[in-house]
Amino acid sequence: MKIALAQLNYTVGDVAANTAKIEASIEQAKNEGADLVVFAEFAVSGTPAYGLLSKTTFLTLCEEAVESIASKCRGIAAIVGVPYLTEYGPVSAAALISDTGSISYIGKQYVTARREMGYLVGSKRGYDSFDIAGKRVMIVVGDDLSRTHDIDPEVDLVISVNARRYGKGLMSYRFEKMSKLAFAEGKNIIMVNQIGGSGEIVYDGTSGVLNSRGELLMLLKSFEEDFRIFDTEDERAQAVQVPFTTYNDRTRMVYKAACLGLRDYFHKNNYYKACVGLSGGIDSAVVACLAVGALGRENVRVLMMPSQFSPDESVEDAKKLAENLGVEYSVLPIVEAYDAIIDTLKPVIGGTEFDATEENVQSRIRTIMLMAVQNKTGYMLLNSSNKSENALGWCTLYGDTAGTFSVTGDLYKGEIYDLARYINSSFGDVIPETIIDKEPSSELRPDQKDSDLLPPYEVVDAILYRMIEEHQHREEIINAGFDSEVVEKIHSMIMRNERKRHQFPPVLRLSRCAFRHEWLMPLVNRYGD
Amino acid sequence: MKIALAQLNYTVGDVAANTAKIEASIEQAKNEGADLVVFAEFAVSGTPAYGLLSKTTFLTLCEEAVESIASKCRGIAAIVGVPYLTEYGPVSAAALISDTGSISYIGKQYVTARREMGYLVGSKRGYDSFDIAGKRVMIVVGDDLSRTHDIDPEVDLVISVNARRYGKGLMSYRFEKMSKLAFAEGKNIIMVNQIGGSGEIVYDGTSGVLNSRGELLMLLKSFEEDFRIFDTEDERAQAVQVPFTTYNDRTRMVYKAACLGLRDYFHKNNYYKACVGLSGGIDSAVVACLAVGALGRENVRVLMMPSQFSPDESVEDAKKLAENLGVEYSVLPIVEAYDAIIDTLKPVIGGTEFDATEENVQSRIRTIMLMAVQNKTGYMLLNSSNKSENALGWCTLYGDTAGTFSVTGDLYKGEIYDLARYINSSFGDVIPETIIDKEPSSELRPDQKDSDLLPPYEVVDAILYRMIEEHQHREEIINAGFDSEVVEKIHSMIMRNERKRHQFPPVLRLSRCAFRHEWLMPLVNRYGD
Repeated sequence: MKIALAQLNYTVGDVAANTAKIEASIEQAKNEGADLVVFAEFAVSGTPAYGLLSKTTFLTLCEEAVESIASKCRGIAAIVGVPYLTEYGPVSAAALISDTGSISYIGKQYVTARREMGYLVGSKRGYDSFDIAGKRVMIVVGDDLSRTHDIDPEVDLVISVNARRYGKGLMSYRFEKMSKLAFAEGKNIIMVNQIGGSGEIVYDGTSGVLNSRGELLMLLKSFEEDFRIFDTEDERAQAVQVPFTTYNDRTRMVYKAACLGLRDYFHKNNYYKACVGLSGGIDSAVVACLAVGALGRENVRVLMMPSQFSPDESVEDAKKLAENLGVEYSVLPIVEAYDAIIDTLKPVIGGTEFDATEENVQSRIRTIMLMAVQNKTGYMLLNSSNKSENALGWCTLYGDTAGTFSVTGDLYKGEIYDLARYINSSFGDVIPETIIDKEPSSELRPDQKDSDLLPPYEVVDAILYRMIEEHQHREEIINAGFDSEVVEKIHSMIMRNERKRHQFPPVLRLSRCAFRHEWLMPLVNRYGD
Repeated sequence: MKIALAQLNYTVGDVAANTAKIEASIEQAKNEGADLVVFAEFAVSGTPAYGLLSKTTFLTLCEEAVESIASKCRGIAAIVGVPYLTEYGPVSAAALISDTGSISYIGKQYVTARREMGYLVGSKRGYDSFDIAGKRVMIVVGDDLSRTHDIDPEVDLVISVNARRYGKGLMSYRFEKMSKLAFAEGKNIIMVNQIGGSGEIVYDGTSGVLNSRGELLMLLKSFEEDFRIFDTEDERAQAVQVPFTTYNDRTRMVYKAACLGLRDYFHKNNYYKACVGLSGGIDSAVVACLAVGALGRENVRVLMMPSQFSPDESVEDAKKLAENLGVEYSVLPIVEAYDAIIDTLKPVIGGTEFDATEENVQSRIRTIMLMAVQNKTGYMLLNSSNKSENALGWCTLYGDTAGTFSVTGDLYKGEIYDLARYINSSFGDVIPETIIDKEPSSELRPDQKDSDLLPPYEVVDAILYRMIEEHQHREEIINAGFDSEVVEKIHSMIMRNERKRHQFPPVLRLSRCAFRHEWLMPLVNRYGD
């Protein structure tokens, strides 16, 4: 039996375009002699669709699309992910289309992603088995796979349709689980995933086939569309090496995820050009490189906006970066605007000491400049924050928290450095060493350094990682040897700054525990622990 | 049997303070000879607690609090809402404490509020019956009540513990449903709800007792703490009139909900002072009045920030309002700051026509001013948006969308006028008639009027209401007689501006369908319908 795995990039709500893609792949699979072609979960609708799943007009459109697809399935069977309205509510389903065009729906029983809760109900029935091209095939949707036990011994093959987002470490976790299941149940498993950015999510693809010993027989590309045919009778099929565990590949994956997430967020929203404010620091440098990687240098422009507190070297470093990248840049000193605003504010803040107020004014003036460029020229503002700062609240609301999209906001400071080094080693030394080497500073007042208030980022990141990604209690972290005062301070900063994160632009989710998704705290909260 | 209904205002995470309140009410109930005292759902923890419900330290603290409360229950039984960790995950439970201090937990089977999904699991068992002071009492948590059928005929009484948020129209809906159930099952129902603001939610209280004919026997206060004793043997108990259906009461309810929501958001976050930017328009006028109502005039200050496009009358109107309210005001003209910024921007936007860019610059400069006041003096910025503008995207990101909290962002423009008239009729004519009478305009360029682009607000609101609150399809709205071009335009504006609403401050939820809660659309979305 020949099974085609079609790993495609879908767009939420664009049922016509998604259907056309699916039909083209059916044609290709037919031409290559496949008996069955498998598409991802939510292939017809795109995902996450949130409130669209509550519209019967949308669900009807999706169902009609499946009927259109079925009309193309003569001589080939297909499995297509689609939301499907049952009598008790919409479920995520796999539509199995037989080679004569008849349709059966297999529902997803367990709704485990919070983005689907409240929009989808769990199907009363989950996985089911069917005879396809002389084989007994079990079809299972999404996370139901991990709740699958005691598979009917007569099943030859398990096919799992998915929409699994990328997150650092999630890929290997996914394959480990599948591999154990394949081994425990003694079944081959075929898994087809979406690829592509969709809002704050990027689906990584990485579809594959495992044999009944839990070994990988086939692995599709990550972060790219792919189409492969697996022949169940191919005796030569041998286990392939899993390539995503080494250190270098991890950072490469983050780079690819970031570029794809950014490109698709822009293109699917009909944005094509991006603007970045370059401070001369590492974060905005990396964002500019990602923008060039995602959109092309001709679609990126950068602004340098020094205040009286910006060292000359910062502007020079930024210029050098812009030149290395070959992007258009402008230098707009904000000294005059800053003075005018501070002057206007005299009646209410006159006579007070310079403090965070004046720092924030600088950051917010820069946002006015960048947004004016966006409004006037259509270069959409990219946010340059990182997860460490966002956790601690080291950011200015309506200042450096602004933007159409944040591509790095879910990466710790240390991961930003990793990306910078990866970029320099892969694409020539585009980021000047001085940017990588300089000590982190907001440069909003003379001689400020981020390490004035807390230990260096290596230490802060280690504590943040334990708190956020590992859900460790402060006591565990202190017991591991970290300074208790620092741990308490960081914890209270994280909790206190939920209100800033509430007003953030969409942040591309690259970790396992992204703010506002896996991490969501109440806006009123007196719990100290 | 004498049953005390304790309707209290709890704070999320402040288990110690919540417990102290509960214990004080137990003492009071004992003193008044009650056999049983009933508290709301999540009384011990406060709600919505989101990620706190994933912390075992927090759940343990709550369980210990129940044990402490039980130690106070000698000679009286109590029912207390608390999250409770079961072997399959945390559930929302009612702890029934007997008059000897023994504890039983009754779980909530159906998790229907999206804010609880992913944090709580449904209990395997729902409602249960117990003998309390010689009566057979059925205890049920939250929305399980509406799924209760075939109640054991031996049950004398149903007690429902709740945390039901306020939303226009939800109260009468709630009582209608309960009344039908009481009548259909022929049982008395006692319902205890929380009151108080908690983040974007305000719980309205309005606890009550219904008899088996579905009539109200007792109704506790709305938006205030209350404590009442219901005697099941009191023959004189007669049905009371339900007071929340008339037009006037609806707006009064909105006013009370808004003030309580604002006050609690501030006080529970340890904010005490608020700042409002007064444009001379109706929205900011109403927000200033609500701030005074919630926090006291001595804790409110206002800023007028005219640009070259602000008519003199607007500043005069705003001044008059400030004087009527007795709040401190400052006038900070932004002309100089505006000119400096436009001048700085010349290298990138010079030579272009005045457009939305220059309008947004004015709005964003005002945010810089207001945030400087917040940063320097601790007067927290209140947002002055309304739901009609937020729906249409008639707002400037990092400009008038800014703020610590939006108290009016879930009210349509027409409802803002309602509130203005209610305020003037209840508290003397504080809002100058000229503010109420003038035609809505952003005053960001000469002679701009909101009605230049769309019909007057009465028409726009009617269309928005159908689309958002009634979930009507455009076709239905056009069939009802609205202009098809206008309907299409409004629909596409709503869909396109989800990205702005994503970056909004917390908005007090006052409607049945609040943005980012009941209404949530994907950030990438090509579905036109």
